[in-house]
Amino acid sequence: MNAARARDFGLSFGVLPTGAHNSVSDVPGVTVGHRTVNDGTHRTGVTVLLPCPEDPFTHKLTAACHVLNGFGKSAGLMQIAELGTLESPVALTNTLNVGLVSDALVEYLARRSEAEGVPLRSVNPVVLECNDGTLSDIRHRAVTQEHVFSAIRDASPDFSEGAVGAGRGMICHGLKGGIGSASRLLRLGGRDYTLGVLVLTNHGKLEDLQIGGVPVGARLADSLRAPEAPDKGSCIVVAATDLPLSSRQLGRVVRRAAVGLHRLGSYIGQGSGEVFLGFSTANRFPEGDARDILPCAILKEERLDLPFRAAAEATEEAVLNSLFAAETVTGYDGTVVRSLRELWRP
Amino acid sequence: MNAARARDFGLSFGVLPTGAHNSVSDVPGVTVGHRTVNDGTHRTGVTVLLPCPEDPFTHKLTAACHVLNGFGKSAGLMQIAELGTLESPVALTNTLNVGLVSDALVEYLARRSEAEGVPLRSVNPVVLECNDGTLSDIRHRAVTQEHVFSAIRDASPDFSEGAVGAGRGMICHGLKGGIGSASRLLRLGGRDYTLGVLVLTNHGKLEDLQIGGVPVGARLADSLRAPEAPDKGSCIVVAATDLPLSSRQLGRVVRRAAVGLHRLGSYIGQGSGEVFLGFSTANRFPEGDARDILPCAILKEERLDLPFRAAAEATEEAVLNSLFAAETVTGYDGTVVRSLRELWRP
Amino acid sequence: MNAARARDFGLSFGVLPTGAHNSVSDVPGVTVGHRTVNDGTHRTGVTVLLPCPEDPFTHKLTAACHVLNGFGKSAGLMQIAELGTLESPVALTNTLNVGLVSDALVEYLARRSEAEGVPLRSVNPVVLECNDGTLSDIRHRAVTQEHVFSAIRDASPDFSEGAVGAGRGMICHGLKGGIGSASRLLRLGGRDYTLGVLVLTNHGKLEDLQIGGVPVGARLADSLRAPEAPDKGSCIVVAATDLPLSSRQLGRVVRRAAVGLHRLGSYIGQGSGEVFLGFSTANRFPEGDARDILPCAILKEERLDLPFRAAAEATEEAVLNSLFAAETVTGYDGTVVRSLRELWRP
Amino acid sequence: MNAARARDFGLSFGVLPTGAHNSVSDVPGVTVGHRTVNDGTHRTGVTVLLPCPEDPFTHKLTAACHVLNGFGKSAGLMQIAELGTLESPVALTNTLNVGLVSDALVEYLARRSEAEGVPLRSVNPVVLECNDGTLSDIRHRAVTQEHVFSAIRDASPDFSEGAVGAGRGMICHGLKGGIGSASRLLRLGGRDYTLGVLVLTNHGKLEDLQIGGVPVGARLADSLRAPEAPDKGSCIVVAATDLPLSSRQLGRVVRRAAVGLHRLGSYIGQGSGEVFLGFSTANRFPEGDARDILPCAILKEERLDLPFRAAAEATEEAVLNSLFAAETVTGYDGTVVRSLRELWRP
Repeated sequence: MNAARARDFGLSFGVLPTGAHNSVSDVPGVTVGHRTVNDGTHRTGVTVLLPCPEDPFTHKLTAACHVLNGFGKSAGLMQIAELGTLESPVALTNTLNVGLVSDALVEYLARRSEAEGVPLRSVNPVVLECNDGTLSDIRHRAVTQEHVFSAIRDASPDFSEGAVGAGRGMICHGLKGGIGSASRLLRLGGRDYTLGVLVLTNHGKLEDLQIGGVPVGARLADSLRAPEAPDKGSCIVVAATDLPLSSRQLGRVVRRAAVGLHRLGSYIGQGSGEVFLGFSTANRFPEGDARDILPCAILKEERLDLPFRAAAEATEEAVLNSLFAAETVTGYDGTVVRSLRELWRP
Repeated sequence: MNAARARDFGLSFGVLPTGAHNSVSDVPGVTVGHRTVNDGTHRTGVTVLLPCPEDPFTHKLTAACHVLNGFGKSAGLMQIAELGTLESPVALTNTLNVGLVSDALVEYLARRSEAEGVPLRSVNPVVLECNDGTLSDIRHRAVTQEHVFSAIRDASPDFSEGAVGAGRGMICHGLKGGIGSASRLLRLGGRDYTLGVLVLTNHGKLEDLQIGGVPVGARLADSLRAPEAPDKGSCIVVAATDLPLSSRQLGRVVRRAAVGLHRLGSYIGQGSGEVFLGFSTANRFPEGDARDILPCAILKEERLDLPFRAAAEATEEAVLNSLFAAETVTGYDGTVVRSLRELWRP
Repeated sequence: MNAARARDFGLSFGVLPTGAHNSVSDVPGVTVGHRTVNDGTHRTGVTVLLPCPEDPFTHKLTAACHVLNGFGKSAGLMQIAELGTLESPVALTNTLNVGLVSDALVEYLARRSEAEGVPLRSVNPVVLECNDGTLSDIRHRAVTQEHVFSAIRDASPDFSEGAVGAGRGMICHGLKGGIGSASRLLRLGGRDYTLGVLVLTNHGKLEDLQIGGVPVGARLADSLRAPEAPDKGSCIVVAATDLPLSSRQLGRVVRRAAVGLHRLGSYIGQGSGEVFLGFSTANRFPEGDARDILPCAILKEERLDLPFRAAAEATEEAVLNSLFAAETVTGYDGTVVRSLRELWRP
Repeated sequence: MNAARARDFGLSFGVLPTGAHNSVSDVPGVTVGHRTVNDGTHRTGVTVLLPCPEDPFTHKLTAACHVLNGFGKSAGLMQIAELGTLESPVALTNTLNVGLVSDALVEYLARRSEAEGVPLRSVNPVVLECNDGTLSDIRHRAVTQEHVFSAIRDASPDFSEGAVGAGRGMICHGLKGGIGSASRLLRLGGRDYTLGVLVLTNHGKLEDLQIGGVPVGARLADSLRAPEAPDKGSCIVVAATDLPLSSRQLGRVVRRAAVGLHRLGSYIGQGSGEVFLGFSTANRFPEGDARDILPCAILKEERLDLPFRAAAEATEEAVLNSLFAAETVTGYDGTVVRSLRELWRP
């Protein structure tokens, strides 16, 4: 985990307690791995979130997605909307690499199923994306199958944030963005649950950035004399929880990720694709269960205010973590995107 | 229940067994009542389906809706889509009466809650509608609160079909339509469940009507020399089941009601509002349950083919039951709409 | 128009210029009227927005809606989603009065059509609602047809904000809410267009209220020692514009109303119904146009960032206008809800 | 074009006249190409529909999609839903090949843009799929970039139907399915327009197949003694038209494709992904248009009944064309899937 996070700079977010590591991996079983591709003309990569230690294809998880702004190329959402289940790792990468990364997930899942003796003839790979074409030569689809496998091997509860993996070439509010994470504890039914989020940030204009209500972006824009740029970017939010939620409830929860983005100043530009995915590790549907009627559990609807608030708070913090963790990066054509951490004046 | 139903005329529908009475009321606890308003210039009324014997506001049911064609004025669907629950009887009536019938349901539910000592300050009344303005003077909103209360008092497992209640003034495929019902038995998990549907039919063109693949409508159009009329109507389908289904699953099930409409020849005219509602009596959420985490049950997704087929078959049969049960009705301006039963030549 | 508005207290919102009166009525043809019902046990009323001087039924407007949180009972959205047109005034009222107010709109539109010699047999009344049951005896549905007609007669470009009309009994962030408005100018295609919003505010918790990033609500909660209350409320946003937008584009625009709510601290509680409606006065579809193919115009998609920003800014400002305009109101059971204006300390 | 089509066997469909070749390519500018991969263990391929002679990325078309059943892995739909435009050829292939075919479309579009001097950094490739894993060794993703390029080079108004291209390994109602097409003429506004559909058929159970109301499938099931199989398949429908329709209107039109599937006996099995895409060649948005406000045209809403009926009729006929055109195919493991044409007894 990175040393530099938003809280290290005296910032705080909301009222709920964080999980032990203030990370999506506070949800038991969730791990994240990266493979950065940072050579020649490439400032890109792939980040993979494994939702559970088991093969997700044979141990499907309850899931939902919400498309806040559909200007994007993410793969796998249609089936999640219909069936309410996740059966794949969640890969993040650059826009034009979605096809190859999807194909790599198919190969990974097929091999894993075969190792368990189950032939795989259909699977729904989930790949979410942002466009890093300002810093990286996106045209050449540099992320290969081997990079995806490498990111999966790298997956761990302790992962880096910032300009790493899929985040290598991302730009958020005119500053260096990338990967961020945060989590919240939820006390319900007499025990603690966790809701964590992982974000890939590539959205927003510098002038619009507000932190705790302070117009940080406008001040930086003045001092940096940065030319104004349109909000063409995207932000991906993946929310994980061990709370027992139905797919419908998860859909309501992930919608609140928008709160975090709006509070930091984004009004969701038309060219920015905002896609939110949520899953629960609690209601599982293992392949081969012979029963027709399956028991499950759901949160009482009135209690949803707690995970709603958690999703809002954790998203806001995760986005800022992505900014504080990222170092300045110089793009393939010499464009320099500055680090908020380096520019920060208390 | 009417003597005249489609099976009495030698027709059959699909392969699944019917429930004991081939009616939505085969689902335990479901009852239906009518109040026909057939005086002066009115050929209209109200039909109320009670989803359970208990107060549905304090004993909410899992529910879903699907809007196949949203040219309509039905009330209550937005909240069902968000929360996945039904907390009201389901009233059917004419288009311009939706407001008054909604208000009557509010009064009914408020009184019922108060009788249990629970003050009611918010409730989501569900009113679905078709337009009977060809036969009835729809402008005057003839259905009053007392008519709604009367239909509720009339509710019983044994109810009439055809030109009764909300069906009094409806026209389906150029013939007299109205209320119809049918049901199917589903063997799952070692026991029998039931899926039943109630329809209000007011859709389709005569020329398009096909029964068992026979172009009955085109032949009747020739012999009746009926002028061609646009498909402005609507069809409402309410599906009930005691199968434990999630709201998401119910949404998938009620979508298959379209199959029944299409097989009879409708292509869903642009001016026809097709609205489908489904609910399960199995996953209930009683007010006052203090637990944060609630147990429930869902059908294994792969088993959904059975309720899908049941919804398709039962809808097709219920629509034809509405046609065979209805007698010829003369409208307030002298327009005569003929009964399929009376025209039927084997 | 009220003297007390947010800008009078030194607040500013965003970067776009306002319309001449910073009001939804800056959009040519849009007027708003109120009828407050403030007698005995009632602190309620009705507010009607007329989208155009013409009969909207015979001169339909392009429209769209977005349901951010569907815990609500609003009427008329299904048909707008399907057809992309508005054919009714937009009425705002309390939750349990939706039925009666819908019925009143039907009567109004039928009389207006008949006066033009067009009989009306189907129309889609639009009624949006929030729940004022804390301050008003909502059970009795005090808003009558005559109140609706009175509000329509009252409609004018110059209308009041705050605890008036439908806003009489509303509570926003624990303070007295109600009706608010604001507008923005958009320079596109060489001329000025306007986007204005009208809000009915009844959402949010006091502790969460932030103004310009300052935690005003938390400070007030401390000083008022107000007990914490769940976010059960709702917020309605109606956006009007004379920009030529398609229904799809209007749907994208009204989604950005959420930005305004989130920036003020709401995370959209599960019991709060957030419903957004947008319409354009530019692409009109008059009844009786005999042409099959109709010319229209749309904004170039890349230019949508401007109305997006306008919707975000105007909504934030309109919500605060509703708070600053409202006076303290005592409810039917003695509950006092304080005015932000009266509590405001610079 | 194939000699064997449904009409050659005496069948007829609906009442509207067909286009000149009863094919999607009757819509001016639309062409289709195939590349069949039929070697070793593969019975698969790719079919590409080019929506216009121009580069679709720089000459976007108005488009819409409808997901009837989202159990599928199609790519590109999210952005079409948001922006209402198509900017890519439409490729059809097998389920596990979607990633590689998406990537090939990116390469194709990038090269084509570069040839025009426009660098491409973001594009939304559209790939729709069905699962041919019964007849083909789907695990190995046999369709390569070169196959996609080959299919594009092959594109022509005169293309084959049946077991060709993406259709090589598909099974529809237990019989050999694949590619089919049909079209209808629409007289509107004093001139003729065309609506054509292209289908990839891989859905339905043999027992359920009905043709013109005759239970052909049940009879064949008896005579073939075929074991009953679940409905796991999918059906893709791509509808093209030169009618000026908005994205919202196209969405309404493509929904009617379901009529064609239902009339042939499908009730849309839970494991079958039904995805419909529609586009119009009339409202185009060329890159580089400097105007903020763009003129366009839409069909008067009441006239939509004609394209609705056309979509229903053409889809039904196209599905049967896919069956009649396909020859018997033996799968990689020896499974034989019979041709309806060969089994047909008048």
